[in-house]
Amino acid sequence: MWGGRFAAGPDAIMEAINASIGFDKRLASQDIAGSRAHALMLAQQGIITDSDAQAIREGLLTVLSEIEAGEFVYSTALEDIHMNVESRLKEIIGEPAGRLHTARSRNDQVATDFKLWTRDQMDAAVSGLEALIRALMAQAEKGADWVMPGFTHLQTAQPVTWGHHMMAYVEMFGRDMSRFKDARTRMNESPLGSAALAGTGFPIDRHMTAEALGFDRPTANSLDAVADRDFGLEFLSCASITAMHLSRFAEELVIWSSAQFRFVALSDRFSTGSSIMPQKKNPDAAELIRAKVGRIFGANVALMMVMKGLPLAYSKDMQEDKEQVFDAADNLMLALAAMTGMVSDMNANTDNLRAAAASGFSTATDLADWLVREAGLPFRDAHHVTGALVAMAEKKGCDLPDLSLEEMTSVHEAITEGVYDVLTVENSVASRTSYGGTAPSQVRAQIARWKEVLG
Amino acid sequence: MWGGRFAAGPDAIMEAINASIGFDKRLASQDIAGSRAHALMLAQQGIITDSDAQAIREGLLTVLSEIEAGEFVYSTALEDIHMNVESRLKEIIGEPAGRLHTARSRNDQVATDFKLWTRDQMDAAVSGLEALIRALMAQAEKGADWVMPGFTHLQTAQPVTWGHHMMAYVEMFGRDMSRFKDARTRMNESPLGSAALAGTGFPIDRHMTAEALGFDRPTANSLDAVADRDFGLEFLSCASITAMHLSRFAEELVIWSSAQFRFVALSDRFSTGSSIMPQKKNPDAAELIRAKVGRIFGANVALMMVMKGLPLAYSKDMQEDKEQVFDAADNLMLALAAMTGMVSDMNANTDNLRAAAASGFSTATDLADWLVREAGLPFRDAHHVTGALVAMAEKKGCDLPDLSLEEMTSVHEAITEGVYDVLTVENSVASRTSYGGTAPSQVRAQIARWKEVLG
Amino acid sequence: MWGGRFAAGPDAIMEAINASIGFDKRLASQDIAGSRAHALMLAQQGIITDSDAQAIREGLLTVLSEIEAGEFVYSTALEDIHMNVESRLKEIIGEPAGRLHTARSRNDQVATDFKLWTRDQMDAAVSGLEALIRALMAQAEKGADWVMPGFTHLQTAQPVTWGHHMMAYVEMFGRDMSRFKDARTRMNESPLGSAALAGTGFPIDRHMTAEALGFDRPTANSLDAVADRDFGLEFLSCASITAMHLSRFAEELVIWSSAQFRFVALSDRFSTGSSIMPQKKNPDAAELIRAKVGRIFGANVALMMVMKGLPLAYSKDMQEDKEQVFDAADNLMLALAAMTGMVSDMNANTDNLRAAAASGFSTATDLADWLVREAGLPFRDAHHVTGALVAMAEKKGCDLPDLSLEEMTSVHEAITEGVYDVLTVENSVASRTSYGGTAPSQVRAQIARWKEVLG
Amino acid sequence: MWGGRFAAGPDAIMEAINASIGFDKRLASQDIAGSRAHALMLAQQGIITDSDAQAIREGLLTVLSEIEAGEFVYSTALEDIHMNVESRLKEIIGEPAGRLHTARSRNDQVATDFKLWTRDQMDAAVSGLEALIRALMAQAEKGADWVMPGFTHLQTAQPVTWGHHMMAYVEMFGRDMSRFKDARTRMNESPLGSAALAGTGFPIDRHMTAEALGFDRPTANSLDAVADRDFGLEFLSCASITAMHLSRFAEELVIWSSAQFRFVALSDRFSTGSSIMPQKKNPDAAELIRAKVGRIFGANVALMMVMKGLPLAYSKDMQEDKEQVFDAADNLMLALAAMTGMVSDMNANTDNLRAAAASGFSTATDLADWLVREAGLPFRDAHHVTGALVAMAEKKGCDLPDLSLEEMTSVHEAITEGVYDVLTVENSVASRTSYGGTAPSQVRAQIARWKEVLG
Repeated sequence: MWGGRFAAGPDAIMEAINASIGFDKRLASQDIAGSRAHALMLAQQGIITDSDAQAIREGLLTVLSEIEAGEFVYSTALEDIHMNVESRLKEIIGEPAGRLHTARSRNDQVATDFKLWTRDQMDAAVSGLEALIRALMAQAEKGADWVMPGFTHLQTAQPVTWGHHMMAYVEMFGRDMSRFKDARTRMNESPLGSAALAGTGFPIDRHMTAEALGFDRPTANSLDAVADRDFGLEFLSCASITAMHLSRFAEELVIWSSAQFRFVALSDRFSTGSSIMPQKKNPDAAELIRAKVGRIFGANVALMMVMKGLPLAYSKDMQEDKEQVFDAADNLMLALAAMTGMVSDMNANTDNLRAAAASGFSTATDLADWLVREAGLPFRDAHHVTGALVAMAEKKGCDLPDLSLEEMTSVHEAITEGVYDVLTVENSVASRTSYGGTAPSQVRAQIARWKEVLG
Repeated sequence: MWGGRFAAGPDAIMEAINASIGFDKRLASQDIAGSRAHALMLAQQGIITDSDAQAIREGLLTVLSEIEAGEFVYSTALEDIHMNVESRLKEIIGEPAGRLHTARSRNDQVATDFKLWTRDQMDAAVSGLEALIRALMAQAEKGADWVMPGFTHLQTAQPVTWGHHMMAYVEMFGRDMSRFKDARTRMNESPLGSAALAGTGFPIDRHMTAEALGFDRPTANSLDAVADRDFGLEFLSCASITAMHLSRFAEELVIWSSAQFRFVALSDRFSTGSSIMPQKKNPDAAELIRAKVGRIFGANVALMMVMKGLPLAYSKDMQEDKEQVFDAADNLMLALAAMTGMVSDMNANTDNLRAAAASGFSTATDLADWLVREAGLPFRDAHHVTGALVAMAEKKGCDLPDLSLEEMTSVHEAITEGVYDVLTVENSVASRTSYGGTAPSQVRAQIARWKEVLG
Repeated sequence: MWGGRFAAGPDAIMEAINASIGFDKRLASQDIAGSRAHALMLAQQGIITDSDAQAIREGLLTVLSEIEAGEFVYSTALEDIHMNVESRLKEIIGEPAGRLHTARSRNDQVATDFKLWTRDQMDAAVSGLEALIRALMAQAEKGADWVMPGFTHLQTAQPVTWGHHMMAYVEMFGRDMSRFKDARTRMNESPLGSAALAGTGFPIDRHMTAEALGFDRPTANSLDAVADRDFGLEFLSCASITAMHLSRFAEELVIWSSAQFRFVALSDRFSTGSSIMPQKKNPDAAELIRAKVGRIFGANVALMMVMKGLPLAYSKDMQEDKEQVFDAADNLMLALAAMTGMVSDMNANTDNLRAAAASGFSTATDLADWLVREAGLPFRDAHHVTGALVAMAEKKGCDLPDLSLEEMTSVHEAITEGVYDVLTVENSVASRTSYGGTAPSQVRAQIARWKEVLG
Repeated sequence: MWGGRFAAGPDAIMEAINASIGFDKRLASQDIAGSRAHALMLAQQGIITDSDAQAIREGLLTVLSEIEAGEFVYSTALEDIHMNVESRLKEIIGEPAGRLHTARSRNDQVATDFKLWTRDQMDAAVSGLEALIRALMAQAEKGADWVMPGFTHLQTAQPVTWGHHMMAYVEMFGRDMSRFKDARTRMNESPLGSAALAGTGFPIDRHMTAEALGFDRPTANSLDAVADRDFGLEFLSCASITAMHLSRFAEELVIWSSAQFRFVALSDRFSTGSSIMPQKKNPDAAELIRAKVGRIFGANVALMMVMKGLPLAYSKDMQEDKEQVFDAADNLMLALAAMTGMVSDMNANTDNLRAAAASGFSTATDLADWLVREAGLPFRDAHHVTGALVAMAEKKGCDLPDLSLEEMTSVHEAITEGVYDVLTVENSVASRTSYGGTAPSQVRAQIARWKEVLG
């Protein structure tokens, strides 16, 4: 492949560490699309003949169909997908195959292939996120007014609504969508025609190939074009933050499925049993999703470390890019699909949610706010009075609404019968109508807004 | 601070692990800006009186001036910047201070403060990147046609121009700017008024405070608003990729400064000496910049790991967010400034660059391209012929232009005298006029485009 | 400091990025100890005079006392702790100070200082782990036979004992101790006398200084000695795994403290309240400990990335080592201390633990094992029968012991009255006497073994 | 597999995310070894019959031979290697197969299998490191007295010897060996018999199975035994530090192979060519090795993140452990083998090395030391004088030995003719005989010591 330059061929270890065909064959269709666009442009610019271009373009389709049919025989000696395809093309069409590599190099070729592949994954991530968002919105719509405990520090803080909780994740996954879209826009420039690193003297038309491959424009600097893996890193960054959000929800599902919480019942489809404990119904899918952030962010770390300190332009270190992005993309899509399935299937135990929301003095803040509003206390004082009432209730072993008005006024004389209205969880959530608040009316407004956004 | 709820106060270890005032005092001006906007809104909505609001707002200015004058006494017992400021406010204005915390919580307060701080850093990063880009463009303009070796695998590949190499980094840092800008747009929503996690029943106007603080809108979900640290993570992701780019350039500067390369002379201002080796002039600044990607990406890993698997809404784990972002921002700005200074100061050794570019058969590709263009060989055949000529020259210990025409034709008969034209490095770079190529004309066109972009 | 070599002094940015005195002043006592050992050796080898050595050694003690008294004025212009100390020494003792740096360099000096500091932290980590282990053993001893649910997937799996659960962490922290001890042994070689990188021609005695500083021997290769930061990385690796263990226990404490679990009550000393929700008692210390693994492992990532691809010997990149190790060590010690305090203070709610252990068909495995043992069923068949019984109980809404013998035999005829013995949680845990099992007898045996190990 | 507990089977997504057979089939031989040891023990303890045990043990050998012959048909529906093997065993031997799983669980089974596999990799790493060390020692022996530049900051610092440089890496890889050995000792405890998490009531003998599988003893706590993945993390930590060392040497080889350095010639076997630049001979293997630290440490990050915050005992998250360790181990072994090959094959260009060592005022320190030794100057003064002489030589465009004695004495009068002796690089390296110094005599002494260590 490298001509007669070398006395000795690479030995087995070298082949093992050097060959990429084992994984870059996933880029076959992108490689062929890029080559077909390149050949057409070469002919249009008069660099190769039209008949050569036609032979190349048809031959490449034959190669593609062989690959898709599983009939293609990959050769490790040919190192990578580019040489495998070109070599097979030569078997099929003969001499014109040798003209395809005019005015390009494997450096711009692999950058183009890998960008096309990664761009598809960005689109797939957006679709996967949208599906998950729709599943969350369906849950939110169903339970816009179901009351559940809102936690801070995993301690009951204030009552919130199920719909509000679901919509919190819609916001997160919505930001994730927006992040992938920005990344896609930024990376959508074609490296093809940057050649090895310096551009070429052939009168190529890089705008033509860029357009043919769906890029917005060609890259503006050939050195950068072959040395750049920002698009891979940015995909991994976006995927990592998404996976982190998934890990948070997965953690909640694991906790909510425990015998102690029983907030949700996951479907059998996304649970498993135990080989020794017949009664177990384990939230395996949630746990595996929780773990994926490690794998995906591990890939991010790997590629960042690979790129650290690399001089321009292309270095072979960069061959370590693809497996990381492939694995992260596969696992992200899997995790999104599994989470979407779990969310669609899961059933909230509304009784348990409401009971948990009503315990633990969860409306203490409502009481404090009442003292500010109705009795004119500064908040800090109201907070102090409420603390004393909670302490009294805790000592009595009862909840706040169970304190008599007499007991209440013994702590602060301004308290009146009206206070009991704010101590129910339904009234509590209904009252929180500030923009973005947990009131069912607010939740429904946000669902409506999101429906419009998604179209 | 938490009222009479607790029998025992936190002991020394707890205070050490729990208090954040040691670092979150950096948020003082953001905290005060947020509180002033909040107080004004509370008054406008009739939640507190105008005179209380005025007292609060003026008192906060007094606190700010004390802090700026270095006269403020921070108290660890008061835990964080929020309580330190409010406590001092109470000393200054008395009772109305207790009304400031109405309809908010430390959860939305800290999210607001930290967002404001991070937003400033995003702006600072954009400015720092722009300064660096301008320094690179000045170098590129000076040396748009200086010839130097273009490397792949740190092996001489093809001649390129100094300007082209500088502009490759302009592309990278340009993407970095765009990334920070996208992140800023995405995060620019105000958490203020989300209260502890559920919103509030007070008739607040979150749009008003959002606008006052320069946010585009309020956040749409109060649970998400207090549980979200995406903005910190996205800052760290953007900063990490920027730092990776800096590490690549820094590596080149270290290599280029070696006695073996002597491609550039760094200024004394950004070099240091040795305590034992008096002759040393070390590229310390470049090395330190190279290292910063570790520190900055380490912060990214830290915060990702903190956020992994946290249930909603706020958990105290999230207090570990600030020091990571502070340290990464400080080091990013420092690295950008140092690199800008180094780039502005450095002198290219044009003689060494040209000589290096001309050695190592660097125009072999030009020869192969000539064979395609002038002799009609398929590229793969031209590549093979060129390989044989390189082998011949290497055996003779000479360079390609030193082979006689007779020797050349002995390898392939179609070679003519015209081939020698493409074997000079000046002709090589001048010929590469494909879009984004290394030709001086292309480099100048890209500089002009960037000038327009930056305005 | 670097003599007259440079025309221009470093400017402000350079000083900011280059100076290390802001953090390496923590190495003052190590630096002085190393210099005192070096001076004594120089005199003994006749390289400097005894009187110079004595002046140096006494002068250094004066410097140390100034530092300890907080009277030392650090100078950023002098860059680092080494030059600050030497410069002050010169002010105190004059000319002989200039002889101290004979036969050494800042490269071996900083390696020595930092190794001494890190070695102390390894010892501190071992002590901190031992204290935590003792606190866990005290809990284990108290509750060797308290029954609690053993979880897999956070689902009740089988009953275990409180003591057994505590001792699981003793095993983890025991491995951590052993890891720190191995790291200490490996790193305990003195770099002092390696000079800049090549050793020295002065007739020094490196074994003497090694011994004086408590090292086992001098390092065997001077290039490696000044280029090595393995000891820092290994400290960070050990600290990270320890912090991961802490994060697991912290997660359990957070979950166990929830209103839904109520397995433990943490002390007020390690909890905090809420500024808006007066009733909250938050497990802040547990959450902060849970987060520390991010910070500590982030430091590990940072230093690994710094060291990646550095050519020998010393590069300035390595100056980024200290802040990472300092911060990780500080936070590890803090987390260990806080966890030790929390463990010592916490109270198990034995009633809740027992009740939770008895629910959820937790003795199903005992039933399956009984079928194997008493009825001779292959385990896989016994497992199937048990599954059917669990399904029956679940349908009836009762627990396994509530099924009548008639119902049981309807599923498998070999079941007899004796089966009810294995369905109580007390009998279940008591029966698991396999080595390392959860039976109280086994737990007590392991406590006894650990007491012997710790002495 | 989980009996009749579930109404609906896992669907396609669940199977994709849940099944591990795609990767854990690599544990087949470990799984079978563990099961054979378990069966023998069950029989010896009277828990199953001797004939059942014999049928199981022979059947397992049949399964193993089918796997080794590539005839085994893996089933994804059977999830993992454990169920695949047991299911096939049942087909072969029938009913007794159902007795094998008595007194164990998949939790202890997978921990045992994975520990056995990881232990083998620790041994393989030690062997791979030893081979590399021997290759380095062969180079060191050949060039114990070849002079080359010693660099700090990639600037020529002082002359060192080739052998000394090679032996620096021997020290690093030696520490790596010791680290793997420590990890192996620490992890060598058998989890088998810990069952699901609580141990078992069957009268098993865990010491017997531990011994049969080459473990030093059984684990001491069954909860810890099934929840522990420290051994995987510690393997990854050790592998990461090793890979970091490899990245440093690989970086040097890349730089040394550049046209500007030409310090070494790598063999064709470990180099590659370019598809467009026929003259290129690229150090691909070195670059790929340099990159591996990213991949291997990325795996470390992944598993650390997976384990963060997991409650006891087994959680499904932990299934993400194996692929990370598998991939890291494969790549570590490959990198070690490739580096060993490269080191064995490479040829030092001794002329270039010596010439580079002699330039750049590399013996300035020797001059300073001479002034201390012969002229009695304090080192700091000698350093200053040397700086002035370097400045003079630089101004004249000559090297230090080219300054006349007159010029020298014009800077400091105490300089005599003898100074020229220390200005040659050969004398410089020969003089550095301090322990661990670069003198050929010291290098040979260290080679001799290492030969003894390795045996």
